[in-house]
Amino acid sequence: MGIRLGDNQYGKAETHLVRVTRGDRTHDIKDVVVSIALAGDFDASHTSGDNSMVVPTDTQKNTVFAFAKEQPVGEIEEFGLRLARHFVGGFAAVHRARVSIEEHGWARINVGSRPHPHAFVREGAEKRVAIVTCTKESAWIVAGLSDLVLLKSTGSEFWGYPKDRYTTLEETHDRVLATGVVARWRYSVPELDWGVAFTDARNALIEAFAAKHSLALQQTLYAMGEGALKARTEIAEIRLSLSNKHHFLVDLSPFGLENDHEVFYAADRPYGLIEGTVARDDAPEPGLAW
Amino acid sequence: MGIRLGDNQYGKAETHLVRVTRGDRTHDIKDVVVSIALAGDFDASHTSGDNSMVVPTDTQKNTVFAFAKEQPVGEIEEFGLRLARHFVGGFAAVHRARVSIEEHGWARINVGSRPHPHAFVREGAEKRVAIVTCTKESAWIVAGLSDLVLLKSTGSEFWGYPKDRYTTLEETHDRVLATGVVARWRYSVPELDWGVAFTDARNALIEAFAAKHSLALQQTLYAMGEGALKARTEIAEIRLSLSNKHHFLVDLSPFGLENDHEVFYAADRPYGLIEGTVARDDAPEPGLAW
Amino acid sequence: MGIRLGDNQYGKAETHLVRVTRGDRTHDIKDVVVSIALAGDFDASHTSGDNSMVVPTDTQKNTVFAFAKEQPVGEIEEFGLRLARHFVGGFAAVHRARVSIEEHGWARINVGSRPHPHAFVREGAEKRVAIVTCTKESAWIVAGLSDLVLLKSTGSEFWGYPKDRYTTLEETHDRVLATGVVARWRYSVPELDWGVAFTDARNALIEAFAAKHSLALQQTLYAMGEGALKARTEIAEIRLSLSNKHHFLVDLSPFGLENDHEVFYAADRPYGLIEGTVARDDAPEPGLAW
Amino acid sequence: MGIRLGDNQYGKAETHLVRVTRGDRTHDIKDVVVSIALAGDFDASHTSGDNSMVVPTDTQKNTVFAFAKEQPVGEIEEFGLRLARHFVGGFAAVHRARVSIEEHGWARINVGSRPHPHAFVREGAEKRVAIVTCTKESAWIVAGLSDLVLLKSTGSEFWGYPKDRYTTLEETHDRVLATGVVARWRYSVPELDWGVAFTDARNALIEAFAAKHSLALQQTLYAMGEGALKARTEIAEIRLSLSNKHHFLVDLSPFGLENDHEVFYAADRPYGLIEGTVARDDAPEPGLAW
Repeated sequence: MGIRLGDNQYGKAETHLVRVTRGDRTHDIKDVVVSIALAGDFDASHTSGDNSMVVPTDTQKNTVFAFAKEQPVGEIEEFGLRLARHFVGGFAAVHRARVSIEEHGWARINVGSRPHPHAFVREGAEKRVAIVTCTKESAWIVAGLSDLVLLKSTGSEFWGYPKDRYTTLEETHDRVLATGVVARWRYSVPELDWGVAFTDARNALIEAFAAKHSLALQQTLYAMGEGALKARTEIAEIRLSLSNKHHFLVDLSPFGLENDHEVFYAADRPYGLIEGTVARDDAPEPGLAW
Repeated sequence: MGIRLGDNQYGKAETHLVRVTRGDRTHDIKDVVVSIALAGDFDASHTSGDNSMVVPTDTQKNTVFAFAKEQPVGEIEEFGLRLARHFVGGFAAVHRARVSIEEHGWARINVGSRPHPHAFVREGAEKRVAIVTCTKESAWIVAGLSDLVLLKSTGSEFWGYPKDRYTTLEETHDRVLATGVVARWRYSVPELDWGVAFTDARNALIEAFAAKHSLALQQTLYAMGEGALKARTEIAEIRLSLSNKHHFLVDLSPFGLENDHEVFYAADRPYGLIEGTVARDDAPEPGLAW
Repeated sequence: MGIRLGDNQYGKAETHLVRVTRGDRTHDIKDVVVSIALAGDFDASHTSGDNSMVVPTDTQKNTVFAFAKEQPVGEIEEFGLRLARHFVGGFAAVHRARVSIEEHGWARINVGSRPHPHAFVREGAEKRVAIVTCTKESAWIVAGLSDLVLLKSTGSEFWGYPKDRYTTLEETHDRVLATGVVARWRYSVPELDWGVAFTDARNALIEAFAAKHSLALQQTLYAMGEGALKARTEIAEIRLSLSNKHHFLVDLSPFGLENDHEVFYAADRPYGLIEGTVARDDAPEPGLAW
Repeated sequence: MGIRLGDNQYGKAETHLVRVTRGDRTHDIKDVVVSIALAGDFDASHTSGDNSMVVPTDTQKNTVFAFAKEQPVGEIEEFGLRLARHFVGGFAAVHRARVSIEEHGWARINVGSRPHPHAFVREGAEKRVAIVTCTKESAWIVAGLSDLVLLKSTGSEFWGYPKDRYTTLEETHDRVLATGVVARWRYSVPELDWGVAFTDARNALIEAFAAKHSLALQQTLYAMGEGALKARTEIAEIRLSLSNKHHFLVDLSPFGLENDHEVFYAADRPYGLIEGTVARDDAPEPGLAW
């Protein structure tokens, strides 16, 4: 009976880069957290500690910073592509490079209602995401977002589900629906105005959440995915992970009060978790995208 | 040698209430996390387990929900006052009630550029805060915010500091200044349009951060505090805690690149922490506000 | 061009159960966080809001609590099996159930050096994990741990790696090696003394980390995986994710001090992330284990 | 109406130092996170950006690392004293220095049941704490711990409390009592075997929690404080902050099951928070300890 090394990858995770672009009068900033994972001929490092093929993760970090200087960072999909291509192109042993980037938004501060040239306020917890995977021949681009939180105070129902001996949930025709959205969508094209496509997809997700009268969070998920696919034909497939952030109607009857869907307790755990993929029939093969 | 009970308080922390107000066509929501702390005649509970004076924390939680139904929540300062007054007014043993409320912002979703009547997207990590303290006779109102993050990409210097044998920091006339802001300000008036006052104070903090050319984060802190005091005469005193979120210029010279204040590494720890109070000369005594 | 629903699953995440077993004189406690994900015939819920097949996540939560009463929880692998089998067995629409359980350890408190019958102190951040996947015909058991943190103050080197224009890292023959361990291993048997097997695997991981002179964290990873496989023949495969928690030697030379591998700065981000699988040559197919 | 600077302090927070002591055959490690806050003549920095008195926080960080080399770190109370005395002693403008240190525990790994000379496993989330405050003339030592979590599965009651219209809680003569402990105690002596004193106090807290039949968490708090004071006469005063981590008995009656204090749902929020001080009658004045 032998023991062998299986799939493996390594890299530098969460290099936090802030790039300032100094224009004539105004500055722009880009705030990204870059994680790199390389796969390839790294067996010897595992089995005998031979690192002759192992690009140090410290070098990977340096490369992020150097690349941010050599050209503008641009859209995170582009920056990911540049980095991923560098590693598969520059090192024979690297067969696959995956670069995952989270971007934090910053808004320009207004002073006296005029935009300040170099002062910014951080936007919320939501992050824009790009995950770029390259081999020596191909590239796959996944974009997405995390930590977007949405809520409808009505327009959501849940009923008609099977009941067994452990079912106590009451059917409802009016509930609060709140969800934390994690979305990842795969593009079928290698080039695009990534920023506009991101905005279009994000808007479509949010609008579908709002507009769809919901009989189940699953139905909302499908509508959101469909919305994104319709908004951008370049999206082949979207994967959504929606937490169901329960808002329980508080029983106020012991206090002689009625609660007509007004007072809710927002619970932390447990929570529902609804995960699904919405895809085009003719979506190209995902390859190594995921 | 005897042993005795000293200062003590207790209460229910972090009751997460979401209140929906259902208008004719549109809904409004209020998302608050309420923490209550009561001080008073609770020695017997500590020393003999006699709970005859102890308002259960579960009752405190129920009260939050019931009060949210009985009247509109309103501004968090008002909701805090209603709750705090209830506990000192309704229970002889409660000498002091402190109600701390964090409010999370939600923005209305636009669908087809029209505001949706009952769908919302959560705004960032920043929280509006109110801390209301009541005795049977008096009340003190503190407002503030947490998790506001600001950054200037230039317009910040740091030099002229003492050097000792452990000093290696280079003086700089151009650095990135980034800070996480925690602010608490004490009002000298019992009634006010709390929402407008909050917005005015917040704007003043942000504008002062942006507009002040900074020779030290301490100087920025003072300017921010001064800005808030000037914006609202009802603010007697403001306490600011500013983390100095270091953005280190990456040394790109090993790669043959110059770094003219463009590429920064955003560090997590350690960080500077600058804390200070800015007050009016004629500020009334703080009493139990803090 | 059509749009279709792809892979999907849903369930209740992070139901936090504490089960007290009340013996004659002493109590035992089990503290677990249970997450359930069901896959199957749920298309109608997505596409038309028809929930007639959707076992509510609330029912799933209830089932966790009820099952904890009906029989002893036992080892988490067993509890996961009972739950997963219930869902695939009891509901025709459920084709696959995955139950993931995290267990938090508690140690009995000693009073006067005698074990107290019903008082406990929580053990560290480390968690024992089981992930059980069932179809109507089969079951797969994965066990593991998270948040185990290990450190060697010497016995670790890193050199012989390729240098390019972005390499600045110095080779080292003596460094601190610290890692946060996430391990998941797949069993090839359906029954076992899971508790003993877990302890054996965990010990093997830790001993291999300690005993292996390390030329790369990759080499340590392989040794750890090999150790676990050798410790328990029932383990077919192990997946390890090891963060490289960098401890940087502080340059004390500006202070006229030498730093002979004594004073380190423990950095948070970025960090290395080394991931790999170690498997038996004759491991059975993984099926739906992962 | 003038505006003025009030209380202020600044410093470097959370410098994470790992100190390796390399003995003949075995190594020891010390893992501490050091936060420094200085108060004094820093008005000019705030009001005019004059930093001539401002010891840079970067220098403070360097000092932590240099001091860790110059002498053994020793107990964290001692390390805090050395650092705090350095700042008030070396800089005329520094009137008060407060050094707060969190220590993370590491246990030696056993290989083949023999202790390994230089490999360690991190102990849980619990942290030992010291807070040392120095002026040019005096010093105050506070010690403590954070993130200690305790649970009793019985031996806890809660009844006899006042009922009002918002009370729904049922009285109980048997509940689970679980608490997250934050403790800070002030010593009345300037020198001590700090490590032994810490262990004695910690043990006393834990034993009192276990041994005390509890009619209220307040009563348990007092017993814990009293226990610590009795264990070490050098402790003048102890401040305890105990979260009441609610474990709710799950209602299993809908499933035809009885729940005889066996199955609990461990809730996250809201939680009770019980805070209190236990002190000696003859405790010396606290001065600037807190």
